[in-house]
Amino acid sequence: MNSRFKMVFILALSSMVILAGCNSSATDESSKKDGVVEAATSTNEVEVIAPHKDLNQEPIPVKIERIGENEVNVEMTSQITDIEISPDYNYKAWTFNGEAPGPVVVVKEGDMINFTLKNMDPAIPHSMDFHAVHAAPSKGFANVEPDETGTFRYPANKPGVFMYHCGTAPVLSHIANGMHGTIIVMPKDGYPNDAEIDREFVLIQNEWYKYNDINDFMNGEPSQVVFSAKALKEGDRNTNGDTFSLKNEPLLAKVGDRIRIYVNNVGPNEVSSFHVVGTVFDDVYIDGNPYNHMQGLQTVMLPASGGAVVEFTVTEVGNYPIVTHQFNHAQKGAVAMLKVTEDGKDDGKAVGGH
Amino acid sequence: MNSRFKMVFILALSSMVILAGCNSSATDESSKKDGVVEAATSTNEVEVIAPHKDLNQEPIPVKIERIGENEVNVEMTSQITDIEISPDYNYKAWTFNGEAPGPVVVVKEGDMINFTLKNMDPAIPHSMDFHAVHAAPSKGFANVEPDETGTFRYPANKPGVFMYHCGTAPVLSHIANGMHGTIIVMPKDGYPNDAEIDREFVLIQNEWYKYNDINDFMNGEPSQVVFSAKALKEGDRNTNGDTFSLKNEPLLAKVGDRIRIYVNNVGPNEVSSFHVVGTVFDDVYIDGNPYNHMQGLQTVMLPASGGAVVEFTVTEVGNYPIVTHQFNHAQKGAVAMLKVTEDGKDDGKAVGGH
Amino acid sequence: MNSRFKMVFILALSSMVILAGCNSSATDESSKKDGVVEAATSTNEVEVIAPHKDLNQEPIPVKIERIGENEVNVEMTSQITDIEISPDYNYKAWTFNGEAPGPVVVVKEGDMINFTLKNMDPAIPHSMDFHAVHAAPSKGFANVEPDETGTFRYPANKPGVFMYHCGTAPVLSHIANGMHGTIIVMPKDGYPNDAEIDREFVLIQNEWYKYNDINDFMNGEPSQVVFSAKALKEGDRNTNGDTFSLKNEPLLAKVGDRIRIYVNNVGPNEVSSFHVVGTVFDDVYIDGNPYNHMQGLQTVMLPASGGAVVEFTVTEVGNYPIVTHQFNHAQKGAVAMLKVTEDGKDDGKAVGGH
Repeated sequence: MNSRFKMVFILALSSMVILAGCNSSATDESSKKDGVVEAATSTNEVEVIAPHKDLNQEPIPVKIERIGENEVNVEMTSQITDIEISPDYNYKAWTFNGEAPGPVVVVKEGDMINFTLKNMDPAIPHSMDFHAVHAAPSKGFANVEPDETGTFRYPANKPGVFMYHCGTAPVLSHIANGMHGTIIVMPKDGYPNDAEIDREFVLIQNEWYKYNDINDFMNGEPSQVVFSAKALKEGDRNTNGDTFSLKNEPLLAKVGDRIRIYVNNVGPNEVSSFHVVGTVFDDVYIDGNPYNHMQGLQTVMLPASGGAVVEFTVTEVGNYPIVTHQFNHAQKGAVAMLKVTEDGKDDGKAVGGH
Repeated sequence: MNSRFKMVFILALSSMVILAGCNSSATDESSKKDGVVEAATSTNEVEVIAPHKDLNQEPIPVKIERIGENEVNVEMTSQITDIEISPDYNYKAWTFNGEAPGPVVVVKEGDMINFTLKNMDPAIPHSMDFHAVHAAPSKGFANVEPDETGTFRYPANKPGVFMYHCGTAPVLSHIANGMHGTIIVMPKDGYPNDAEIDREFVLIQNEWYKYNDINDFMNGEPSQVVFSAKALKEGDRNTNGDTFSLKNEPLLAKVGDRIRIYVNNVGPNEVSSFHVVGTVFDDVYIDGNPYNHMQGLQTVMLPASGGAVVEFTVTEVGNYPIVTHQFNHAQKGAVAMLKVTEDGKDDGKAVGGH
Repeated sequence: MNSRFKMVFILALSSMVILAGCNSSATDESSKKDGVVEAATSTNEVEVIAPHKDLNQEPIPVKIERIGENEVNVEMTSQITDIEISPDYNYKAWTFNGEAPGPVVVVKEGDMINFTLKNMDPAIPHSMDFHAVHAAPSKGFANVEPDETGTFRYPANKPGVFMYHCGTAPVLSHIANGMHGTIIVMPKDGYPNDAEIDREFVLIQNEWYKYNDINDFMNGEPSQVVFSAKALKEGDRNTNGDTFSLKNEPLLAKVGDRIRIYVNNVGPNEVSSFHVVGTVFDDVYIDGNPYNHMQGLQTVMLPASGGAVVEFTVTEVGNYPIVTHQFNHAQKGAVAMLKVTEDGKDDGKAVGGH
């Protein structure tokens, strides 16, 4: 591991307690008034398939272990776990490791990944499609049958912020039911501004629909659109696997910080117009590749599955909502909150008001 | 003000009488046949909130005054004013300065903006979120209560074509009811082709939905999608505040002109595929930042809130429709018309036929 | 013709037998289960206009003839021809040359195009709007009346992958009923990696709606979203006019091949998130212009009418699905299949399984 990487890990140190999918109280209230929450709740009426009925598998942490300069072991599970997508509604999600989105996986450009998928779902085959790797999907992303374990090996030789998802047919159902997440491949020479970044966050946007309803997945409007924040971990820069989705805990920063967000829109259906209120992005790297550099963007266009690295500076103490500017989706929950204080610690004040 | 800027102001001189949202007669006829106009009209059935019922506030012109090399005073109002969005339907819009979209604001990169918002709405707080500035939204974009005036100060230090909008919750309602517009921050060193540009226009795309109906804002299809054209004014290059939306007056140019359009898609929900029929863009600057240069685009992808500067040359006398190539939206009204004549003056001939 | 171009023609030689719009068997099954096919079939209930009722005009091949170093004659028809958009549903399409999408037209940057449109439709005027050319639409894209022939002349002086479509009002109906296609303007100095490309394909994405139903075109969800593949022909690099849409024949390549796809999203309404499973694009040129270079993209954002050139390398034998990652659209058919074998020939094995 070269010194450039070490440096960034230290910068990431203070960014471990974060949040996302934060609805400001104002948004929450309007949601209640106009029936969004009710719509989401009503998805409970859709039947859960029989073998999943009483299943709520304890989340199994992802295992990421570096075994060589350019080789990493990654072990994940596919499992059925309840996900709270609003205060009064649990979605019996098809997940990776009991999270939806799944845990963030971080590797380095040039790594070979030895990947193990343990399918804990008693009824349905699952698989893994990492957008970051080169592999013949019919082999490298092959189905793992219920209660079986599959092993795969493929290179991650392009840097960027990539989606991963279950690739088992019908893919739409597997993604929409929760089997999506983000794999970040850190560029081997780093990003141009690594030395100036004070805080790093990972934000993932996804939509929820009626429970396991392929007609709604195909033709309906999402009942919820949310951001989930994931922490980058010190050391090997892998995540700690924590998710703070919809918990009203803000992302925290110190006034004057230069902030980087690795953002990924995992869909399944909608594009995203990613925007941070109160700032303009200094630098943007489309799909997280340092070559694809743009400056001064107010909003980044993310295709379904697309990613970006965005960097900006917060100049004043206060609260900065993070949204998709497709405001029907913001209204359905896609609002995270960045809270900027004098010292970068939570001052306990409410984050609502914008 | 440097000489580069002066030059462009002269070029902008002849571009003051313009239009937009022009429906060709053919489109109008098909609209009538297929019920678009009826759908729009039926939104009258939705109840206007009581304090707005008999309100139709006279538009108050925006005030933009340069008070220093790098400092500008901008005064705007939030007010309730009827907007004609089709020949037989007035929308009792929530507006900035009685226009929807609001007046174009033009400043220079590096300007400090002293902003005053006078809230003439007797019932609802409003606010201003300029995408062009750096400010903590919880302070700089704070609510101004009914019949009160708020003052704010923030820098505009990135060049580009930025959206502005009311940021009061629920933001979706404030934008969808009409509180959106465009602020252009002219790059301090100008755009690379300033010397070659003959005409400049500002075009803003927005959607209309059922009157103040948040369920339709969140889940419905737009009843109208329109372009509004705004004039750039000679001198300090601020706008004259005129709107020519839906008046069937074409944008005018002379054969051989090199044309620049500052385009902004203010949503609230939809992305735009901006295209001018009969040409290919020579140069495009994403979000209006000179760094983000593309060439030879047929169509520019604009996220919700996204902007661009596009430049192209008209080589023949005739009419050039301007559309979003998401043609369901063009069919709902998002067609402006650029009319090219030998001398750049309107020859009085009809613009239909394409 | 310079040597650079000759080289590429040889590379294109082996890419003549191709497919697209391939539904994997798994997708097909789920489609049947969830009613997609039924929805499409039900469009038969919409009335075909009387003069088209018993019309199914034999496809007339496009004629493309180079008559000078920088001059090409292109002759096309507008005609009413049944298009199989699913195994049990023919759409009585409004077409160019009896195909939907129409035949791919390939010219060179700097060419003057002498264009002839023979309108074989007995009832409705049609026209041609090439996004690749400069022309006043009111003249160059003018209507050709039923049973008449129009001639036009315009330059194609920007390289790229451009949409063409009928521009007769209501344009939405003409595009949605099938009058769309792709014109490729090869850059005069070629693409940077021409020498390394082993296979080239053209893929066009479009949506289908209820038959000739402008309300569904404007407000409905597509019943089908499909890719069509078109072959590039040896020699003058024009197409052979064959379409293999929805025939379950894969695109074929050899392990290790560097592949180029000219992709175009002709809508009419939807944007596309173009992605090839199992790879990352090495190089992408937005709208096919060599200036607009991006690297390492997982997914390309295509606006409605937008194009791109994407290049990637297949490293293992197997099947690589090609999708829009807006997975509601993939589920409705927008899945093509790239089959990679040891020798680049079809091994006869099924392509399902992902």
